[in-house]
Amino acid sequence: MFNKNLKRISLLLVLILVAFSFSIYAMSSAPVEEKEGNKVVEQGTPKYVFLFIGDGMASSQRMLGEYFLRAKTGDQNAKLTMNQFPVAGMNSTYAANTLVTDSAASATALATGYKTNKGMIGQVPDGTAVKTIVEAARDKGMATGVISTMRLTHATPASFLAHNESRYNPNQIAEDIAASDVDFLAGGGYRYFVPKDGELKSKRKDDKDLVKVFEDKGYKSFVNDPAGFRDYKPESGDKVFAPLTYSHLPYELDRDPKKLPSLAEITQKGIETLSKKDNAFFMMVEGGRIDYAGHANSPATVANDMLAFDQAIAKAYEFYKNHPKETLIVVTGDHETGGLGLGFKNDYFLNVDELLPIKSSLDKINYSGDRKALFTALKEEYGLTDLSDKEIAKIKQAMNLEDAGKKPVEYMPGFMSPVDAAIANVLSERVNLFWTTYAHSGTTVPLTAVGVSATNFGGYKDNTEIAKTLAEVLGVKLTEAK
Amino acid sequence: MFNKNLKRISLLLVLILVAFSFSIYAMSSAPVEEKEGNKVVEQGTPKYVFLFIGDGMASSQRMLGEYFLRAKTGDQNAKLTMNQFPVAGMNSTYAANTLVTDSAASATALATGYKTNKGMIGQVPDGTAVKTIVEAARDKGMATGVISTMRLTHATPASFLAHNESRYNPNQIAEDIAASDVDFLAGGGYRYFVPKDGELKSKRKDDKDLVKVFEDKGYKSFVNDPAGFRDYKPESGDKVFAPLTYSHLPYELDRDPKKLPSLAEITQKGIETLSKKDNAFFMMVEGGRIDYAGHANSPATVANDMLAFDQAIAKAYEFYKNHPKETLIVVTGDHETGGLGLGFKNDYFLNVDELLPIKSSLDKINYSGDRKALFTALKEEYGLTDLSDKEIAKIKQAMNLEDAGKKPVEYMPGFMSPVDAAIANVLSERVNLFWTTYAHSGTTVPLTAVGVSATNFGGYKDNTEIAKTLAEVLGVKLTEAK
Repeated sequence: MFNKNLKRISLLLVLILVAFSFSIYAMSSAPVEEKEGNKVVEQGTPKYVFLFIGDGMASSQRMLGEYFLRAKTGDQNAKLTMNQFPVAGMNSTYAANTLVTDSAASATALATGYKTNKGMIGQVPDGTAVKTIVEAARDKGMATGVISTMRLTHATPASFLAHNESRYNPNQIAEDIAASDVDFLAGGGYRYFVPKDGELKSKRKDDKDLVKVFEDKGYKSFVNDPAGFRDYKPESGDKVFAPLTYSHLPYELDRDPKKLPSLAEITQKGIETLSKKDNAFFMMVEGGRIDYAGHANSPATVANDMLAFDQAIAKAYEFYKNHPKETLIVVTGDHETGGLGLGFKNDYFLNVDELLPIKSSLDKINYSGDRKALFTALKEEYGLTDLSDKEIAKIKQAMNLEDAGKKPVEYMPGFMSPVDAAIANVLSERVNLFWTTYAHSGTTVPLTAVGVSATNFGGYKDNTEIAKTLAEVLGVKLTEAK
Repeated sequence: MFNKNLKRISLLLVLILVAFSFSIYAMSSAPVEEKEGNKVVEQGTPKYVFLFIGDGMASSQRMLGEYFLRAKTGDQNAKLTMNQFPVAGMNSTYAANTLVTDSAASATALATGYKTNKGMIGQVPDGTAVKTIVEAARDKGMATGVISTMRLTHATPASFLAHNESRYNPNQIAEDIAASDVDFLAGGGYRYFVPKDGELKSKRKDDKDLVKVFEDKGYKSFVNDPAGFRDYKPESGDKVFAPLTYSHLPYELDRDPKKLPSLAEITQKGIETLSKKDNAFFMMVEGGRIDYAGHANSPATVANDMLAFDQAIAKAYEFYKNHPKETLIVVTGDHETGGLGLGFKNDYFLNVDELLPIKSSLDKINYSGDRKALFTALKEEYGLTDLSDKEIAKIKQAMNLEDAGKKPVEYMPGFMSPVDAAIANVLSERVNLFWTTYAHSGTTVPLTAVGVSATNFGGYKDNTEIAKTLAEVLGVKLTEAK
């Protein structure tokens, strides 16, 4: 009796010890919840991964976007979704051969973990192709998607999908994209995918029909078909090829929402397609036209494209909130464009409200020699109803230059007209901001992240480390350094 | 017998359970090691706390400093110490009444957790004084220090030490500083602490001898005495008052290292003084002249003051490495100055090497009407040995303006001469960088941090949250919101 009781008690003791040991084991091996900023997050391997790249987006663009959001909503505490993520980092962006990078070298760094020369796509300077994180995710069996407001063959998406010595070989890049087996491709630029003499206007030099290549592989294609794309209801196993426009998608300011989906809508469609059957997925989404707006030194266009990009991020964030223990969202820029400085005159004000009445980008305000028509457009489209004599003189001076076929300032890129530059200048001065360049600048770009293993992306990092960290948290391999 | 044994066994069981429970309790309450970037760090209450504020320092200044370090050392992988800290954040900086802030409103936000109007020191817009983190640390019994390359009464240090409706009341601010009981005060600007008609040149309007106030309280004072300050060996319980110069300390480029200690040396002395007897301490260190260099649009001066500031941070980092489980270092800026864009012409290069031969700031290159002397100084002091005809013409045009008593550009601040502006412009174009303003800009500033509870400072935060987070991790109270 005594022994029996002792045995029972001993057994109980052992069981209790085992239970305690197990609970301690469980405490140590369960996904560790870590702190990001003041929030707690998951560590481990994310199942759903979003990489958002704002082309030409650095700290001033993110701040201008937020101030514009506040002006637009009247809510002085409004924040961009991307500016609310708990983890932050700063990324250096320089190329292998220059301190100021371009979108090819920077996107190649973000996609492959390798520095390369300006203009190169998915290759290191000696011409060796290196694996992209999209390819690595695909090879792991994840569903993959690449979305951009640019032509799909343009530098940023191309660097995740193709390998070429030059970004200026879009026809070859299109062939790489057709061979990439990426599940969801949406953006602009069908012109490099359709044959030279087909129904649709092409920029190919040959008769290759890459759309057919996609269709033969079972892709649902929405070439020049935004309406069809909008109506499309994703089904299990779907693969989608959707170059919706001839060239880039328009600036958000110029987008007709009846005709073309927003970047947020495209991103939502991508999420629905890739997450079918609980697929693990990796998706890269580029807000590409922030960069063009920076090249144009146009604050209204930057501000509106920043909001459009942020709304796409908000779609991913909604998904994250439904899958917080499985989702990772990383938002960064590839470089800064324009040297945007949120200050000009020595009076410390920013008049962001000046951007509110603007209805179109400068692309839509074309000066053709008809001065009256231009000033009317400035009133009606650009909200410039009260131009001062000085501002009018500045614009007229540019008209004189343009009438004479001249450029107004040194270092003006090819696609800026003198009159556009003068208007951008007038508007910038009204907002009280200014620009150092019509090109890129070499500052660091802020990164923010939320979700599983988001902390790994925090801190000062080179852009190459973002690809390496993505590979690390996904458990995939990029090309190893020799 | 049975009962006795059962009791013994039960007691054993209880003891084991208590021991287990205690070990679990210990596991949950011990400092948790958390991940910052890819490194593991401590959580808890730091004993030693450093807040470094780079005045006018945002992402471009940090990147320019790093590129300059690389050019100077020839090490293409060299990094600023501040850019190696594992935690990063971005801080918005706007003032209560403007989107572009000044150093008073921004330092008040960083010191007190409250937004205020431009120009106000340690007060909210209605004039109510609010407690600073230095005061709160002092009241907790921590040793405290405030160090700056500016006059100690200037906006940033003043906002941690004083309460005034205006930064332009330095004599009142000096009285607050003398009453602050802060243990270590070092920087420039004795002129507001010495009496009107004393031995040292004063800017006081009265006969108050604030140096005597400090000395009567037992401070060791080093007024206008950098040599004595350098020789000083800290002892237990020391309190130090060291306004080493009449006005600000000079730009790093202009500092005579034989005569004046560097910011790193001053910081090191502060560490030695405050850490005596294993005191807990809080220290604020301002790299103040980065801002002035930005106002002057002078890239060489920014770059050199960035390195001097980083070397001061390196001293704190050495201390951290000896006390990693007790130290917190936070580095941020108060706002951006100059709208510095690291890019200008459309060729994507930065020629940072152009900054290497420069031996002095523009303050030392005075144009007094003697053109030959100025061009000689540009060769000998500024490394401009090969000025082009165009560059010479630009400088001569400024000389013409200056000879005629005119300002060269709109919005030039009072302290920039036309010739200085032209030289800064020539040099900036050579480096291929440019500026949007002679004033501040409204972009976010990067923060980095390392050490105990550093993760709490990561992510996008408003500058007011930095003070609040400091108070939280120190376990002290700032003024509560009404």
